[in-house]
Amino acid sequence: MIPSSPTAHSFVEEVEVQGHILDSLLLPKILDEILTRGGSYVIKDIKIGQRQTDTSRALIQVRAPSADLLESLLEQILAHGAVPINPNDAKIAVADMDGAFPEAFYSSTSFRTQVRLDGEWIEVEDQEMDCGIVIDAEGTAARCIPMVEVKTGERIVVGREGIRVFAAETQARTNLFEFMASPVSSEKPKGVTVREIAAAMKRTRAAGEKILAVLGPAVIHTGSVPHICKLIRAGYLNVLFAGNALATHDIEQALFNTSLGINLEHGLPDEGGHEHHLRAINTMRRIGGIATAVEKGVLKSGIMYECTKGNIPYVLAGSIRDDGPLLEVITDALEAQRKMREQVRGVGFALMIATMLHSIATGNLLPAWVKVACVDINPATVTKLADRGSIQTVGVVTDAEPFLRALTDELGC
Amino acid sequence: MIPSSPTAHSFVEEVEVQGHILDSLLLPKILDEILTRGGSYVIKDIKIGQRQTDTSRALIQVRAPSADLLESLLEQILAHGAVPINPNDAKIAVADMDGAFPEAFYSSTSFRTQVRLDGEWIEVEDQEMDCGIVIDAEGTAARCIPMVEVKTGERIVVGREGIRVFAAETQARTNLFEFMASPVSSEKPKGVTVREIAAAMKRTRAAGEKILAVLGPAVIHTGSVPHICKLIRAGYLNVLFAGNALATHDIEQALFNTSLGINLEHGLPDEGGHEHHLRAINTMRRIGGIATAVEKGVLKSGIMYECTKGNIPYVLAGSIRDDGPLLEVITDALEAQRKMREQVRGVGFALMIATMLHSIATGNLLPAWVKVACVDINPATVTKLADRGSIQTVGVVTDAEPFLRALTDELGC
Amino acid sequence: MIPSSPTAHSFVEEVEVQGHILDSLLLPKILDEILTRGGSYVIKDIKIGQRQTDTSRALIQVRAPSADLLESLLEQILAHGAVPINPNDAKIAVADMDGAFPEAFYSSTSFRTQVRLDGEWIEVEDQEMDCGIVIDAEGTAARCIPMVEVKTGERIVVGREGIRVFAAETQARTNLFEFMASPVSSEKPKGVTVREIAAAMKRTRAAGEKILAVLGPAVIHTGSVPHICKLIRAGYLNVLFAGNALATHDIEQALFNTSLGINLEHGLPDEGGHEHHLRAINTMRRIGGIATAVEKGVLKSGIMYECTKGNIPYVLAGSIRDDGPLLEVITDALEAQRKMREQVRGVGFALMIATMLHSIATGNLLPAWVKVACVDINPATVTKLADRGSIQTVGVVTDAEPFLRALTDELGC
Amino acid sequence: MIPSSPTAHSFVEEVEVQGHILDSLLLPKILDEILTRGGSYVIKDIKIGQRQTDTSRALIQVRAPSADLLESLLEQILAHGAVPINPNDAKIAVADMDGAFPEAFYSSTSFRTQVRLDGEWIEVEDQEMDCGIVIDAEGTAARCIPMVEVKTGERIVVGREGIRVFAAETQARTNLFEFMASPVSSEKPKGVTVREIAAAMKRTRAAGEKILAVLGPAVIHTGSVPHICKLIRAGYLNVLFAGNALATHDIEQALFNTSLGINLEHGLPDEGGHEHHLRAINTMRRIGGIATAVEKGVLKSGIMYECTKGNIPYVLAGSIRDDGPLLEVITDALEAQRKMREQVRGVGFALMIATMLHSIATGNLLPAWVKVACVDINPATVTKLADRGSIQTVGVVTDAEPFLRALTDELGC
Repeated sequence: MIPSSPTAHSFVEEVEVQGHILDSLLLPKILDEILTRGGSYVIKDIKIGQRQTDTSRALIQVRAPSADLLESLLEQILAHGAVPINPNDAKIAVADMDGAFPEAFYSSTSFRTQVRLDGEWIEVEDQEMDCGIVIDAEGTAARCIPMVEVKTGERIVVGREGIRVFAAETQARTNLFEFMASPVSSEKPKGVTVREIAAAMKRTRAAGEKILAVLGPAVIHTGSVPHICKLIRAGYLNVLFAGNALATHDIEQALFNTSLGINLEHGLPDEGGHEHHLRAINTMRRIGGIATAVEKGVLKSGIMYECTKGNIPYVLAGSIRDDGPLLEVITDALEAQRKMREQVRGVGFALMIATMLHSIATGNLLPAWVKVACVDINPATVTKLADRGSIQTVGVVTDAEPFLRALTDELGC
Repeated sequence: MIPSSPTAHSFVEEVEVQGHILDSLLLPKILDEILTRGGSYVIKDIKIGQRQTDTSRALIQVRAPSADLLESLLEQILAHGAVPINPNDAKIAVADMDGAFPEAFYSSTSFRTQVRLDGEWIEVEDQEMDCGIVIDAEGTAARCIPMVEVKTGERIVVGREGIRVFAAETQARTNLFEFMASPVSSEKPKGVTVREIAAAMKRTRAAGEKILAVLGPAVIHTGSVPHICKLIRAGYLNVLFAGNALATHDIEQALFNTSLGINLEHGLPDEGGHEHHLRAINTMRRIGGIATAVEKGVLKSGIMYECTKGNIPYVLAGSIRDDGPLLEVITDALEAQRKMREQVRGVGFALMIATMLHSIATGNLLPAWVKVACVDINPATVTKLADRGSIQTVGVVTDAEPFLRALTDELGC
Repeated sequence: MIPSSPTAHSFVEEVEVQGHILDSLLLPKILDEILTRGGSYVIKDIKIGQRQTDTSRALIQVRAPSADLLESLLEQILAHGAVPINPNDAKIAVADMDGAFPEAFYSSTSFRTQVRLDGEWIEVEDQEMDCGIVIDAEGTAARCIPMVEVKTGERIVVGREGIRVFAAETQARTNLFEFMASPVSSEKPKGVTVREIAAAMKRTRAAGEKILAVLGPAVIHTGSVPHICKLIRAGYLNVLFAGNALATHDIEQALFNTSLGINLEHGLPDEGGHEHHLRAINTMRRIGGIATAVEKGVLKSGIMYECTKGNIPYVLAGSIRDDGPLLEVITDALEAQRKMREQVRGVGFALMIATMLHSIATGNLLPAWVKVACVDINPATVTKLADRGSIQTVGVVTDAEPFLRALTDELGC
Repeated sequence: MIPSSPTAHSFVEEVEVQGHILDSLLLPKILDEILTRGGSYVIKDIKIGQRQTDTSRALIQVRAPSADLLESLLEQILAHGAVPINPNDAKIAVADMDGAFPEAFYSSTSFRTQVRLDGEWIEVEDQEMDCGIVIDAEGTAARCIPMVEVKTGERIVVGREGIRVFAAETQARTNLFEFMASPVSSEKPKGVTVREIAAAMKRTRAAGEKILAVLGPAVIHTGSVPHICKLIRAGYLNVLFAGNALATHDIEQALFNTSLGINLEHGLPDEGGHEHHLRAINTMRRIGGIATAVEKGVLKSGIMYECTKGNIPYVLAGSIRDDGPLLEVITDALEAQRKMREQVRGVGFALMIATMLHSIATGNLLPAWVKVACVDINPATVTKLADRGSIQTVGVVTDAEPFLRALTDELGC
């Protein structure tokens, strides 16, 4: 084939893309990127697998009118898995200050990534989006590193050369998770959704991976504490991320049987109820924390009680709207992120309910291959999380309490 | 007391208001209306009941700077139950044309109303908002009449004299319905809400009153057909209002096991599924309608099947977005309203789920004293219905399927 | 290539698909359909255009384990433009009753469609989704026909043979309309959106095509009447679809300066304001309709006034929640649909604001190639319309009044 | 009058409530509280003002069946301004540990409050909800103190005695702020709302009080930066509260002309745009912060630029979803709250746009008498803020960019 305007597009590089490039829509996206940004392409070779499980492969000549544009084009399509066929090693720059990357740092995605060092493709560890990649002293290992953790002298990957992103690794659409990823609607058969999520949780537990729950205070307000407690006791909740509000209202309920002052038995406000959450926090602070309160028999039920009894690790991250807060709350956002990063290792499934802040924060930390179910009654929250690019996310627009009731039924716990 | 500016406010009339005028906030509202609109008042006498169940009574002198303003003030506060203490008979004008009221017609509310005729207070029948009041030939009976039904020669109430509105008849706040009427939030204990609605439905059935269900198609899409069928069989659903979409997708599900083409067992689109609803309608039209389809064994399950088997009357009202429609659909809006008016008589409880159009239409027809539970995942829909002034409305922001699952559990059906 | 399991998949047919099959994602979708539904494929030939404006072409052998499945597979992918390469003429059945199609009728989409008759590909006229296709007596013309309009003896297309759907005709993504089609978010640069919509309206007017406005009553409540009047006077609004509520509140505003009783100058409720809409309707009914009211100088401003003065055709479609209604309201849904169908011819751009019912109804009638801007403050409404498959729809989550203010500014009217 | 059951209700105390107790609905609420919680009342005396500007006064005998219940009743109605007529001095307990109140601490509201010390009513300073009240060493001054700030040995008010809350101090309903406080709807005349907010901002500036803006990142995404810059330059924005995202995307726009990678001129994603925010942060961190970037000419426009140039103080509070963050971000939530508390002093008007987290956090810090306009396209956010009890809050459901465009027009800046 003849390029559209050879003189204009005389900067050329060949890239290769393979995988389920048709049904994962990768190839169309790559071609679209090239054209939209002012380049042109010649498809030199294309082999399309006969079945969906077969991989396809395309060899594309990318052309651009300037070296700069070609560079930026290649960078762009690299994110979709289009790798230059004669790759160089990744370029490395030494961090010249703490807490910032060198200017041309490579910005990571949540997809599985490899870096080419000494001609070898090295797997990037701790995959996380919006980070840099740091190379160890021996040049044999690579891992994602947040900007704030950079120390002077560390070796940081710059540019786009020698980097391979496996965005293409989507599975065949055999179940709900792939199907429902994009469309977010409240008008879906809910029984099916619950069954699929339950099945994914069973598979995760059976595989010995951790199930992470990210919960907002509406879980308490809607009366869902008993359901969460069942999940914990049945081994379906192995790590908890939440904020001061969830823990406070959970403890408020254990101590006063109200949530935000609303009695959970008759749905009416209790006398002095609006102060209960503050008194609950004060009591916990006075006694020296949740664990002590459980030990001394002051805190006898609820999510925080079950976590304490069952040795479920939790991260309570602080925010500026917190009252108190509880002593367990990590008020520094960076410290909280660090703790969340630690706990995210080994998570195979994340159930995010009724919290936009904590869900998005957690979504930012998770590699793309961890399955996520995001449950919220507000479609905007679900859309926002799904938009952030985790292809394994199923968004469920529904109500926390009835959803959790059905989920625990389905799990038989 | 001395009026603020006697010369300016020399037009005076005394009104009386009684009932739970403090805790129902009536008196404050009335005083506020008077002042806001430029009048002034003297509270001549006030008796405030000691307990909430006691009624209070206030005698208020209303003053205004002009006869016109006084007139409009009195008209305004009449809607809150402030009745002139020396009332005249209601004024009557004869309709001078079909399909329209005389100019000064009295516009009705949904509250219990009486009209004074020959010195007697006559109860208004068929109470409905935004209607006129027609007096029978003998002058001994009054009923609400929609504009479009007016016939030349009928005697229509005009002006505000001789009319008594019992807006004040609110009960003590003993249960959820009164409490939750105004606030619309998804963050409420859901178990309580379901229990209260179930209790109201049991009371209604026990009292021999009818339970009306107003259902939108999301009831089908979310997989709630089995729950509604249970309600019908257990006698908890005695009249059904819906549109072409609900009936069509219900029949689509019975014939094809899909709703809008989505398979209700695995949640994925069926092949050719997007045509199923049209084929379902076509089949029903070919066979001669739903009843024949049930009789011939073509339609063997679902909501319309159960309604047919159980002799549950239904009104399927047409709309401009309908495909088909089914033969049972009443395509003329006025005819549909007439049918709905007939069926609304004797209803003691209305359960409105996932439909704004039919819910508001039904809300317009219901007297204020009929209890309504409005369930929708969209807070805006719930707010809109609650805003229309039915004080007996409890709005529940939740998801149709899990709500109905919990409701049938609670009702033991 | 060798099919996965030749014995199981021994029913075979070859189809061809051409157009922008990669960047419009057609080919991936077709392959996905085949595999998901249990078939397999061999790509016999594929030619992929070098540039986005070039068309590509693929020849696919479709295989299935049964004749039935093959049939349904072919039917399915036909909707994506995959046409059997050795097509037969379309099959035709004679309608055996009024108001219903023959059982196996072909169900239309909103995409451009051709039918093969006597070896010739005939263009289908009046393209509309969820209809059948009727062939004229001479067998030389075809058009879409709604189920309810079918007359006994008419010749209706059945099955999937001899039908070609041009879903593939998408343009290159050169402007907002293509880009923003799918994502619905309130977090977009609004100035750009307004500019793009204004540009599309200018192009439409310049092309001599009609601009259709579909308006809900919130247009009036938010104070947008002056903006709509400007559009009408400047020739940017050529047809109006709305309901009783829009026209009523528009007239209420002209007569009383309120909308739903809220004064539009100071934003507070007027005295007796809640009755204004009913009095407005009554006045119009008494005088004999809107045109007479304009003529007699009773109605002197507003949208309905401008439509009357400017000879802008309008369809006011009735619904069961209507008060009154106005004499101009078409209360029968089928009659209203007929009137809307007439007016839809020649429309090149549709602006739908703040009405789900009328927007979806109109969307059902419009061919896929008419550009639509759907403006609503509720993302769910925008999503719902966008979901119905019109690829030319741009959804804008924003507020009616400020949007219209900016739009008229941009249009310079 | 005779109490309902004298033996059961033999614990008695007399309270007085004065102010606009009818039209502010205070008296009804108080009576309702007493009855709902199982007490009874006798209204010993009631004087109701003739005009709305007159104050009324009621003397109420509160009765309860137990001393405990009486205590809790009195505590409850104290929050509505019902003060025991023979008050004692406030009770004080000495803090026995850092960071927690004594058990029976009095929990503050956002309303103006007085404490009785040595027979004198002392004004409470730094009024803030969900705090305690600390008394100075001399016993002549009182101020609100958050739990976490408590130091051992400080004198904290406990119980409900000797405390007066001025919830009753509502003004006559003369403008939008009072009127629109409760109802939250997108269907309001928007021009009026903008005019009222502009008027309130002018009054605030004229009074020499500060205008606080609390802004979320959608302000940037929707293209509102120029509007905010105008407000700053015209002196209508004197303090800014925001998070890392607002500042980052503002700087991203200044450096790259994108927001979250979307080009703000043509609304399409820029190449590499999804990395722009991270690169913007990195650049700021490398250069040493925003002020240095402005000084060195690297940052030349936008909100943060204008704040720096105009010496507008800002608090950027961190959260766990932050990338980077910028060096100016206060990552510790308690430290951020402290900084916000400092800046809140002297604020007369707060404009909160498109951020739930920062708006609620700020709402928690503001005394009830500061006027707040909360603007969000999501009604749930607006409702949530309005629910938190600030009676001076007007909620506006609308879109940020067109709202700000109209606001700056109205303010003539």
